[in-house]
Amino acid sequence: MTDWEKKAAAKRAQRDALLPQDLVQCDTSELDVLAFPAQSGNLSRQELEITDSQNITVLLDRIKDRTYSAEQVVRAFCRRAAIAQQLTNCLAEVFFDRAILHAKNLDDEYMRTGKPRGVLHGLPISLKEQIGVAGVERSFGFVGFLGRVVERDAAITALLVEAGAVPYCTTNVAQHLGFGAAVNNVFGETTNPSNRTLTSGGSSGGEGALIALRGSVLGIGSDIGGSVRIPAGFSGIYSLRPSYLRFPYEGTCNSQEGQESLRSVLGPMAASIDGLKLAFKTVLDLKPWRLDPAVLRMPWNEERYQLSEHGGGKNLVFGIMVDDGFVRAAPPYHRALDQVSSALKAAGHSVVEYKAYDAGMGYHLFGEVWTADGHKDLYDTLALSGEPRVGPLGSGPEVVQEEQVSVTKYWEIQYRKQRFLKAQLDHWNATEAVTGSGRPVDAILCPVSATAPQTLRGRQYYGYTAWCNLADYPSAVVPVTRVDQAKDPKVAREAYHNDLDRELWEMYDPEVYKNAPIGVQVVGQKDEDEAVIRMAEIVDAALKASRAS
Amino acid sequence: MTDWEKKAAAKRAQRDALLPQDLVQCDTSELDVLAFPAQSGNLSRQELEITDSQNITVLLDRIKDRTYSAEQVVRAFCRRAAIAQQLTNCLAEVFFDRAILHAKNLDDEYMRTGKPRGVLHGLPISLKEQIGVAGVERSFGFVGFLGRVVERDAAITALLVEAGAVPYCTTNVAQHLGFGAAVNNVFGETTNPSNRTLTSGGSSGGEGALIALRGSVLGIGSDIGGSVRIPAGFSGIYSLRPSYLRFPYEGTCNSQEGQESLRSVLGPMAASIDGLKLAFKTVLDLKPWRLDPAVLRMPWNEERYQLSEHGGGKNLVFGIMVDDGFVRAAPPYHRALDQVSSALKAAGHSVVEYKAYDAGMGYHLFGEVWTADGHKDLYDTLALSGEPRVGPLGSGPEVVQEEQVSVTKYWEIQYRKQRFLKAQLDHWNATEAVTGSGRPVDAILCPVSATAPQTLRGRQYYGYTAWCNLADYPSAVVPVTRVDQAKDPKVAREAYHNDLDRELWEMYDPEVYKNAPIGVQVVGQKDEDEAVIRMAEIVDAALKASRAS
Repeated sequence: MTDWEKKAAAKRAQRDALLPQDLVQCDTSELDVLAFPAQSGNLSRQELEITDSQNITVLLDRIKDRTYSAEQVVRAFCRRAAIAQQLTNCLAEVFFDRAILHAKNLDDEYMRTGKPRGVLHGLPISLKEQIGVAGVERSFGFVGFLGRVVERDAAITALLVEAGAVPYCTTNVAQHLGFGAAVNNVFGETTNPSNRTLTSGGSSGGEGALIALRGSVLGIGSDIGGSVRIPAGFSGIYSLRPSYLRFPYEGTCNSQEGQESLRSVLGPMAASIDGLKLAFKTVLDLKPWRLDPAVLRMPWNEERYQLSEHGGGKNLVFGIMVDDGFVRAAPPYHRALDQVSSALKAAGHSVVEYKAYDAGMGYHLFGEVWTADGHKDLYDTLALSGEPRVGPLGSGPEVVQEEQVSVTKYWEIQYRKQRFLKAQLDHWNATEAVTGSGRPVDAILCPVSATAPQTLRGRQYYGYTAWCNLADYPSAVVPVTRVDQAKDPKVAREAYHNDLDRELWEMYDPEVYKNAPIGVQVVGQKDEDEAVIRMAEIVDAALKASRAS
Repeated sequence: MTDWEKKAAAKRAQRDALLPQDLVQCDTSELDVLAFPAQSGNLSRQELEITDSQNITVLLDRIKDRTYSAEQVVRAFCRRAAIAQQLTNCLAEVFFDRAILHAKNLDDEYMRTGKPRGVLHGLPISLKEQIGVAGVERSFGFVGFLGRVVERDAAITALLVEAGAVPYCTTNVAQHLGFGAAVNNVFGETTNPSNRTLTSGGSSGGEGALIALRGSVLGIGSDIGGSVRIPAGFSGIYSLRPSYLRFPYEGTCNSQEGQESLRSVLGPMAASIDGLKLAFKTVLDLKPWRLDPAVLRMPWNEERYQLSEHGGGKNLVFGIMVDDGFVRAAPPYHRALDQVSSALKAAGHSVVEYKAYDAGMGYHLFGEVWTADGHKDLYDTLALSGEPRVGPLGSGPEVVQEEQVSVTKYWEIQYRKQRFLKAQLDHWNATEAVTGSGRPVDAILCPVSATAPQTLRGRQYYGYTAWCNLADYPSAVVPVTRVDQAKDPKVAREAYHNDLDRELWEMYDPEVYKNAPIGVQVVGQKDEDEAVIRMAEIVDAALKASRAS
């Protein structure tokens, strides 16, 4: 073992020692482990009842009406998270003991005052590893950063705690947050609980697996090119990529610190749809601009949530984009979007085809900004310990520069980006001519990825998520279906957009990706976060109604 | 004459030929020419009545009630602008004829429909040279760009026209928008109508002089380090530097295109205080995010204007900062802020001293971002024609880099900036401990500059405005007084903060700067634009009341 390998192994052993010891070494040879926590006999009836709560709001109500104490709830999720860890390796830092103490204090306070601490009173909340929790180590998945302990809660942590939430663990990430899987040299690789030969996505892939297994019902991830949406889609859960500067990033460490052109944003990941509004509104109601000088003074907008600019939510017109003209999405996404379209029509809405505005150019621009330092920040950090670069790097078009560019070149890239985004905005607004509603398409529905949840180091194309980051479009992920060997066969194509399109299309195999979750995005225009949350709720309700009928 | 000098002279001759010929060669030897338009006999009684309107709202009402036609109003301002041009050289492009035709069409439409086009029906509006007007040449003050004609209206132009305004001229700018005066090789130098040995400020200095002379009552400038506020303060008019991305920049050309770290913003400059709300609300009510993909979907916020987060505007507590600890402002600003303080106290508000959070560090960071390309963009543009760099360049601390930096270094600067802004936010919020209102200081009042309106190439310190750009604080300028030889003597100091502080303090001379306007800023926290407008109205009303009593 090299020196860095020894340090990483010691760190993992330290983490594992903090798991409840009666739960250690519970595992199975199954690929689909979603049912394991319930079937393993490791959790009590009450623990299962708590962690399987139908939605987060109901769980919060059960704490408020004293059906469960905060301590019971936190203990249950700690135990289930420990199981999830052993099934998928989704955790980074574990601080269950202080979370249980935190919950006890909330219970005492509630007993004493009769008033819950806030909207999230007693809810355990998981956090992506980069988010600061005072007193907790934060290596950011780099061996070279091991031993760094966070001094102050990040703004997001402080606000969630202010609302009554209880942080209890941080979750695994992609090295340098650089790709759509969760693997790094410190914590290793997170797998997909629906099919453990696949990735749970990334970079917030620990959250994806943990929440899918109900080791958490609400977590916070981050997204610079799809990093909350890919793991949500790949894991079969919900998420929101908010617009820039609504959630506070203060106190959250990041790759490429100081890069402000293509901003990473924090966003909620949740086991149920209600988690999106709950997390978003709760954080905004606490005025995050008090704590973070970059955050917009843009409070929760109820009118926007009520879709006042979208006909009040009646007869919405959705634009469907399942082939962006650069890489066509894999077969299961076509079935998923057909399913969504039918469900929406049955609910009184309509759909039209949405043709992307030069997705290849957008993806190229995304790569130019994202790789403007030629990966110098990554390589400098690796050099601290001698650890190697890991992850499904591929040779995708996202890797545009291998040497850092000058500031003049950087500004020139950004200027081209601005021109592109203006053309793309005009293109979206021009759909007013075809909707019949007097409005452009109210939202765009598209896959979370061109590929089904990938094999562990499989190549991905991030264009379906990255276009939202480039344009700062808010986007919510709704799970739709799973890869079905009967319904989602390989389909032959006569022509391809380009080599990447061919490579990824030919890679699809319903046997390899069996049972993998398939999610779609609901994409709105910049700053339409509240409207996107509402439209995601409408999509989710329509899907549920169509399944029930 | 060199080639570029010939081209520039031809351009100026072309401009001058477009002025009403009966007004050509009206000038005087006076330094203070503010009274000249009224006394020269060049304007009719009605033209004077129109252009001297007490405020913009009254003028708009007189158009709506048909006291004046739009054509009469536009013709009057074209004539007065032509006089202003000859007194101060404030204009760039002149398109009076099409403006008069535009006004006639508005009159016809109003006659036919009985409905005004919009809130600004018939109001002539002046635009800083960089703002696109379809069919109008835009050299940006560079000889190398002469002959470029704008194809489409900028978003701001289109919105103002949609609201009924009539563009009729563009106004002179600093070369490359790079300093607090208006001089470039194409259009030459703009002087201050209160004292023509001084500058009217910059970079939007053409607007400053034009509006001070009532050749316009409402114009649009831009601000990256003080460029609407310095000329407003130096010229004795009002202005607003809005927060980032509220006014649309789309279609407005800029220096350092693609630089997004320290964003230039457009903002209104006005002859009367009502122009700030009028322009800001009108533009936002027309949803600028439809036209510009970067603009925030943040509509006019009436609650914020009503100061709902500031006790409804009763018993406000203002922080006074007349010495930022890096460069103390010149004596007249001390008297001006004393005057403002007394007026505010008489109106039931209170004031406390506000101590800047390390202004020197802030100014250094501002310079680091602003000069990150080592002026490459400027020198490349100069090289197109061989014309020289001009303007009061000095060797101030704002010039930090003479060679462009790498992207890695750029991000490192921005990261330090983020840390600085967090500390500064905490510092502002900590004033809650001294206000007695339960709130931090509601706004900060400070000079628009350390120096009185400077001599034409005199050295300036931009720290009093640039700190708002670095932190994205909205700021409004209110004119307060004028340099008075009796009341504003030179004052001896025993100690100085640094050499620049000493140099600028010793430069002050009440004889040199006599009669120069002295303005102050009302600075709010990021995105508090509406609150800042309201507080500027409160400051202005208090000052007027104190003068009347």
